[in-house]
Amino acid sequence: MDKIKELGFAKLDLSRSQRTGQSETVFCPGKTKEQLATILKAFQEENIAVLGTKCSAEQAEHLKKEQISVVWDQQSGLVCSEWGKRSVLPGKIAICTGGTADIPAAEEAAGTAEFLGAEVKRFYDVGVAGLHRLLSHIDEIRKADIVIVAAGMEGALGSVVAGLTEAPVIAIPTSIGYGAGFEGIAPLLAMLNSCAEGMSVVNIDNGFGAAVLACRILRMKGKN
Amino acid sequence: MDKIKELGFAKLDLSRSQRTGQSETVFCPGKTKEQLATILKAFQEENIAVLGTKCSAEQAEHLKKEQISVVWDQQSGLVCSEWGKRSVLPGKIAICTGGTADIPAAEEAAGTAEFLGAEVKRFYDVGVAGLHRLLSHIDEIRKADIVIVAAGMEGALGSVVAGLTEAPVIAIPTSIGYGAGFEGIAPLLAMLNSCAEGMSVVNIDNGFGAAVLACRILRMKGKN
Amino acid sequence: MDKIKELGFAKLDLSRSQRTGQSETVFCPGKTKEQLATILKAFQEENIAVLGTKCSAEQAEHLKKEQISVVWDQQSGLVCSEWGKRSVLPGKIAICTGGTADIPAAEEAAGTAEFLGAEVKRFYDVGVAGLHRLLSHIDEIRKADIVIVAAGMEGALGSVVAGLTEAPVIAIPTSIGYGAGFEGIAPLLAMLNSCAEGMSVVNIDNGFGAAVLACRILRMKGKN
Amino acid sequence: MDKIKELGFAKLDLSRSQRTGQSETVFCPGKTKEQLATILKAFQEENIAVLGTKCSAEQAEHLKKEQISVVWDQQSGLVCSEWGKRSVLPGKIAICTGGTADIPAAEEAAGTAEFLGAEVKRFYDVGVAGLHRLLSHIDEIRKADIVIVAAGMEGALGSVVAGLTEAPVIAIPTSIGYGAGFEGIAPLLAMLNSCAEGMSVVNIDNGFGAAVLACRILRMKGKN
Amino acid sequence: MDKIKELGFAKLDLSRSQRTGQSETVFCPGKTKEQLATILKAFQEENIAVLGTKCSAEQAEHLKKEQISVVWDQQSGLVCSEWGKRSVLPGKIAICTGGTADIPAAEEAAGTAEFLGAEVKRFYDVGVAGLHRLLSHIDEIRKADIVIVAAGMEGALGSVVAGLTEAPVIAIPTSIGYGAGFEGIAPLLAMLNSCAEGMSVVNIDNGFGAAVLACRILRMKGKN
Amino acid sequence: MDKIKELGFAKLDLSRSQRTGQSETVFCPGKTKEQLATILKAFQEENIAVLGTKCSAEQAEHLKKEQISVVWDQQSGLVCSEWGKRSVLPGKIAICTGGTADIPAAEEAAGTAEFLGAEVKRFYDVGVAGLHRLLSHIDEIRKADIVIVAAGMEGALGSVVAGLTEAPVIAIPTSIGYGAGFEGIAPLLAMLNSCAEGMSVVNIDNGFGAAVLACRILRMKGKN
Amino acid sequence: MDKIKELGFAKLDLSRSQRTGQSETVFCPGKTKEQLATILKAFQEENIAVLGTKCSAEQAEHLKKEQISVVWDQQSGLVCSEWGKRSVLPGKIAICTGGTADIPAAEEAAGTAEFLGAEVKRFYDVGVAGLHRLLSHIDEIRKADIVIVAAGMEGALGSVVAGLTEAPVIAIPTSIGYGAGFEGIAPLLAMLNSCAEGMSVVNIDNGFGAAVLACRILRMKGKN
Amino acid sequence: MDKIKELGFAKLDLSRSQRTGQSETVFCPGKTKEQLATILKAFQEENIAVLGTKCSAEQAEHLKKEQISVVWDQQSGLVCSEWGKRSVLPGKIAICTGGTADIPAAEEAAGTAEFLGAEVKRFYDVGVAGLHRLLSHIDEIRKADIVIVAAGMEGALGSVVAGLTEAPVIAIPTSIGYGAGFEGIAPLLAMLNSCAEGMSVVNIDNGFGAAVLACRILRMKGKN
Repeated sequence: MDKIKELGFAKLDLSRSQRTGQSETVFCPGKTKEQLATILKAFQEENIAVLGTKCSAEQAEHLKKEQISVVWDQQSGLVCSEWGKRSVLPGKIAICTGGTADIPAAEEAAGTAEFLGAEVKRFYDVGVAGLHRLLSHIDEIRKADIVIVAAGMEGALGSVVAGLTEAPVIAIPTSIGYGAGFEGIAPLLAMLNSCAEGMSVVNIDNGFGAAVLACRILRMKGKN
Repeated sequence: MDKIKELGFAKLDLSRSQRTGQSETVFCPGKTKEQLATILKAFQEENIAVLGTKCSAEQAEHLKKEQISVVWDQQSGLVCSEWGKRSVLPGKIAICTGGTADIPAAEEAAGTAEFLGAEVKRFYDVGVAGLHRLLSHIDEIRKADIVIVAAGMEGALGSVVAGLTEAPVIAIPTSIGYGAGFEGIAPLLAMLNSCAEGMSVVNIDNGFGAAVLACRILRMKGKN
Repeated sequence: MDKIKELGFAKLDLSRSQRTGQSETVFCPGKTKEQLATILKAFQEENIAVLGTKCSAEQAEHLKKEQISVVWDQQSGLVCSEWGKRSVLPGKIAICTGGTADIPAAEEAAGTAEFLGAEVKRFYDVGVAGLHRLLSHIDEIRKADIVIVAAGMEGALGSVVAGLTEAPVIAIPTSIGYGAGFEGIAPLLAMLNSCAEGMSVVNIDNGFGAAVLACRILRMKGKN
Repeated sequence: MDKIKELGFAKLDLSRSQRTGQSETVFCPGKTKEQLATILKAFQEENIAVLGTKCSAEQAEHLKKEQISVVWDQQSGLVCSEWGKRSVLPGKIAICTGGTADIPAAEEAAGTAEFLGAEVKRFYDVGVAGLHRLLSHIDEIRKADIVIVAAGMEGALGSVVAGLTEAPVIAIPTSIGYGAGFEGIAPLLAMLNSCAEGMSVVNIDNGFGAAVLACRILRMKGKN
Repeated sequence: MDKIKELGFAKLDLSRSQRTGQSETVFCPGKTKEQLATILKAFQEENIAVLGTKCSAEQAEHLKKEQISVVWDQQSGLVCSEWGKRSVLPGKIAICTGGTADIPAAEEAAGTAEFLGAEVKRFYDVGVAGLHRLLSHIDEIRKADIVIVAAGMEGALGSVVAGLTEAPVIAIPTSIGYGAGFEGIAPLLAMLNSCAEGMSVVNIDNGFGAAVLACRILRMKGKN
Repeated sequence: MDKIKELGFAKLDLSRSQRTGQSETVFCPGKTKEQLATILKAFQEENIAVLGTKCSAEQAEHLKKEQISVVWDQQSGLVCSEWGKRSVLPGKIAICTGGTADIPAAEEAAGTAEFLGAEVKRFYDVGVAGLHRLLSHIDEIRKADIVIVAAGMEGALGSVVAGLTEAPVIAIPTSIGYGAGFEGIAPLLAMLNSCAEGMSVVNIDNGFGAAVLACRILRMKGKN
Repeated sequence: MDKIKELGFAKLDLSRSQRTGQSETVFCPGKTKEQLATILKAFQEENIAVLGTKCSAEQAEHLKKEQISVVWDQQSGLVCSEWGKRSVLPGKIAICTGGTADIPAAEEAAGTAEFLGAEVKRFYDVGVAGLHRLLSHIDEIRKADIVIVAAGMEGALGSVVAGLTEAPVIAIPTSIGYGAGFEGIAPLLAMLNSCAEGMSVVNIDNGFGAAVLACRILRMKGKN
Repeated sequence: MDKIKELGFAKLDLSRSQRTGQSETVFCPGKTKEQLATILKAFQEENIAVLGTKCSAEQAEHLKKEQISVVWDQQSGLVCSEWGKRSVLPGKIAICTGGTADIPAAEEAAGTAEFLGAEVKRFYDVGVAGLHRLLSHIDEIRKADIVIVAAGMEGALGSVVAGLTEAPVIAIPTSIGYGAGFEGIAPLLAMLNSCAEGMSVVNIDNGFGAAVLACRILRMKGKN
């Protein structure tokens, strides 16, 4: 049976982790810092591990002031509870970025995947402008069960990686770029229109979504 | 070693199937019917199974006239070679559609997945306007290893399915709708912005891409 | 006869409430704080109840400094006069949100409807990612004469609610989301393209507009 | 209990009319003519009145050939069953258009409303370029319980009507116009951004949706 | 002969006023405050009257500090030289706004027209939501030789005014609005698609451009 | 007093020409050929000169078959009544095009202006790619009271002409171009953002609108 | 001195070839077949070689019927005069395509470059989905003085080639793709946002423009 | 052989300058100031000249604090190492701007070209609104081997320059403008759709990219 905790401004699904085998997550933007604190405390009371995404510095500071035992990572914006039980997933995720500036989105993916129990291997700054950087790591990338690619600008890295590996590829367009990059529209469209097969796409800068999908795949893999 | 067949207007990768364990595919639009026939014959000579996507009636008729032993499915636009060896993949894919008009995209996914060796189960016309249609099949959908959801209009089915299952969900926005649907932009954006976790998105009407990704996942699953 | 008060920068319609049975409203953005104060004072002199929308903190502070007897609600941005007569409307409005972050738009609707004399019942954080949260409240929602749904991200809640109720549904797309949500375009398009019947849409974050329409409906209902 | 008729490509909801008090409707585009005929026959077997929208000439011809007793209206694209029971709704709907070219969308609304049991009064070609055409009918329009406004080009008629009446206004942007009208985007945006209160918007050319919403309102009105 | 003053970062056209009968103007955005001061001083040396548009507070403050004898109007962002000779133009321009928030754009037009020698009459806050406000002033508006209409939101005022007058109408879409107003795109499209005849459009918030065109018309009128 | 002829699908304003001094016009797209014929006959009965715009070949053929005495010009799509009285306007309009392909829009302007009584001088194919073509005619263009510029592709001709003349300039962006011209969006945006002063813009391909505005200006000029 | 031939609907620049060293070109779309024939004949009379672009089958047929001695290439849409003198340019241009469907745009570039006197080497179907196809030809591509890359879908080939060569790269986005490719917008944005250096972009499908620019570069190179 | 320096968050390509004859460049946005400093130091250790683009004031200050011997130019945002060897390129680049506000983008191009060893000649504020400013410098511009044109607003300068010179033209649309300029979309589209031949386009405000391409052209020129 579904157990919901009613907070008025939020309805917490306390039985999801039991139902789905995945811990809880909270989307922080648009919530007041007080609402966020209240939500995290509610999970703490039930000892359910919880991950917050895109948590601002101001929100993180408030959580600290309220002495809620969470860890905030500035680069990825993730906030992870120190309480609760975590799962372990089989298999390995490779996470690649086109450039250094794509790392925040990649780290959101990496941190989420690690929180959910997956093993992650990072390959940062391997964009197509200097293809040998990618080619010198491709054998290692090919060993992963799933590849996540975060790239801004023209987002070509996704296509190139998907063409060079057999693993499922999840592409994260990032908002890195300027002018006609339109805050990530350019790589988003590029990734949706990839001539390479075996890739799908999540929202711009949605490292979290890519990681959750990757973990669903690993969990499914682990079932048989 | 990579074996490429040079046709001038095309360079066929004859060793990919060996390399990746997946048969060859050909994107038919923009190719003349003569080019398409030449490409298919080249694969036939090598006895490599090949799948053509978005094949027009005119192209299909030409292939027939040229007596190339392929099967064309009008609804999905797929053309499958009758020659060549096919793989078999472990696991099962559920394919859902919001409405009847989304079936062509769904059948492109289904036909591709079946060509690549996967088992497919269809759940058509289970859109959110009448939620009980979906709920009455949800237990069966939950049994699949992967769920593909094809939906046009507001594309809400993806979110609802992803919220009700634990399997990875691949969403296909379809061009069904009119006015402010903008030929599939509305469901594309909706699916990219889903509040539900565990879903990623392919191009509008890209049933093929969703199926290839699903088969990569099943193949990966089968490796351990 | 129409009585207009001429302020130079604004022409106030002092007889509308008499004509239409609805109190006056003022759109605050783009007005200087001095202009806003002058407008409110003009209504106060005539003892006509007035509601200001999207009032900024700076504007509200100025009104306070000028000792104009209004109440400002930070979350909704509404400012309500304490003077003037209010109507009472028959019937009941249910207001639902997809998530916690949609509450400001919903509260703009709720506060406006209450100012105009309607009874409001709130159902917050019932988005489609966890459908059981909605389903556990659906019987109560069905009792309302009109349902207002505020949702950002993919905006699917509108379709699901419209499919589950018989009441007219007014959808408010909110600017909640990021990346390809495009500040509310994603839910706006989703809601305009809903496969569910019986729903119409107002501007992004326009809780005010949804509430005024709902009250027109209730007023019409009350006439016979 | 929900009774669903399974056709493979479609799942018909045969108990909706019982549940919601509204007859069934079918969105024709994207369905093959054979699928459409099968669906209509299924409703005929159950003697449930059914309305098809945006039915093409080719589809209508096939229905005629199949001797299904429906009436097709070329201008509106509506196809109405001659079988089944119809409801009668209290109140009256006024339907206005900006110009002659907006009549097809308006007639889709009018025909749908009449099919669902509402009384309709038409005010065509009353656009804002010649305001006296509207003003000379405004007293009659004010007598309606609900006003539907269909307008293309700059879509200003909605705002003007909403400013002149107290009834709820439902605006239908039409695809009439050219160039920077962008197939209805211009009036859609105009209607969403109306400075007049009490109006909401449906999809471009969605006369059907406007009428269904209007009928939900009338049905709600009739309940008390 | 053309006399150009070379400043390195700018090439001033000192003979234009002689050539065209119109004083000089400077577009301030994107220029450093030092560049702006240098340009104004160069015109001062030649005693050529000059108008700066969209001048920021920071730029204006610098001009003051540099003791350049100009007048800055905060609302319109115009900065006018106190030196130089001004022309006088025949005829009269009516400037209307939809609401109070459109006044800055309207004042940019009014100030520019007055700088260029035209007589201006202001009709502010006469938007279509309360049509009687416009109708009560229409006789006076009809007396103008040219009408400029500044309106944001749905920008309907342009169409209504053009339908009620015989004068040429120049429409200024303003960036007033929110959500699907898209910073002035909604009124821009509405004004471009007007069903009323005799109107043309300038850039969003381009009061300056509307006024210069109006003054060209008045100057042309004065020639015969 | 306003005399309106009620046709059901249209309300004809028979007193406008008397009121405004301008003959009647009919926008043909979206009207059935029968509706168009009925409208034209109604004007013929009253002996009011009428101009139809964007009239299709099919519509024109029907008018011919119905023996309505109108002249249809294929290039511009204009249909002019042979009955009714025409005005004569003072002054002269220069109409320029960037290239040969812009001539249909320019001819819509020219034909309309001539129908309304203005004198027109054509300067076709004087685009900026070969500036000497324009410069060799600029003295003659400068003699006009108003300049209309029709240009597609990058639409730069408007800016160049406005910079070289003192007359008011009305710019018509045309749909000529391909790819990122987006059916006229590129020249539309270019013309709206012109760095040259004294120009305003009408809808894409709206030669009619440019001409009507030009004639309003000439009529105003003629008044004093 | 500039010699212009006046045709009324066109002004031919007969001295450009003398001035610029480049033969004449004609953009065929939007011209009637009669206008096109007249223009070509005018050049023939002067014995000036001329190239027509994007010439339709209907136009080509008319030219043939009129016995104008030109050669039309269906794939590229180019029509080349058989009269007139051609130049020879130093250096070599490599033209690459991502896929077979991009060949028409590439052939427009190749045919134009050859008409203008350049040597062209074709590398077709070397897209990034199968990188070894490109890598096996990269040494030969590196020998070219300029590289033109035509690619649709995600347009990643441009970035990869620019990263692997030192020559200037001119990218042609093609309209090949579907759904969120938006007729070439996806590769256009990708190419504009390339993380690789040394590349610029022409309009979608503008093979002609890429070739003319390449030939200007070769001509400049030949000058010293 | 390729020598890559691994920094974890970046992989520096230390042999590129050897391979391509061009010094290294770093895109500064999205990098933390610490990352930027580390990257520059790594190049300094190898004594490889390096150029940083779009470097913020905050980043520049940090570099200064860290005593890294670079020069930062506020206007262009370029940061140039004082270490390392620079090349010298043959030929000359002319850089034009439409207005004063386009200078930052032009200076990014000029500074980059100078860093890479090219000779640059500046022609600022020669936009088409006052054509004589351009024409009085055109002879000098024609002497350049390559012309770079930076222009915002309607971006017409590119077309006019390309029509008046024989050199290859590289166009930089700038984000200068407002309203429907959409941060540079208007000049971007204008430049892509130029009716003038021999021009290609880089990203909005991408002075760097234009200069690198120009230098590739000069380097190629120098080879023979």
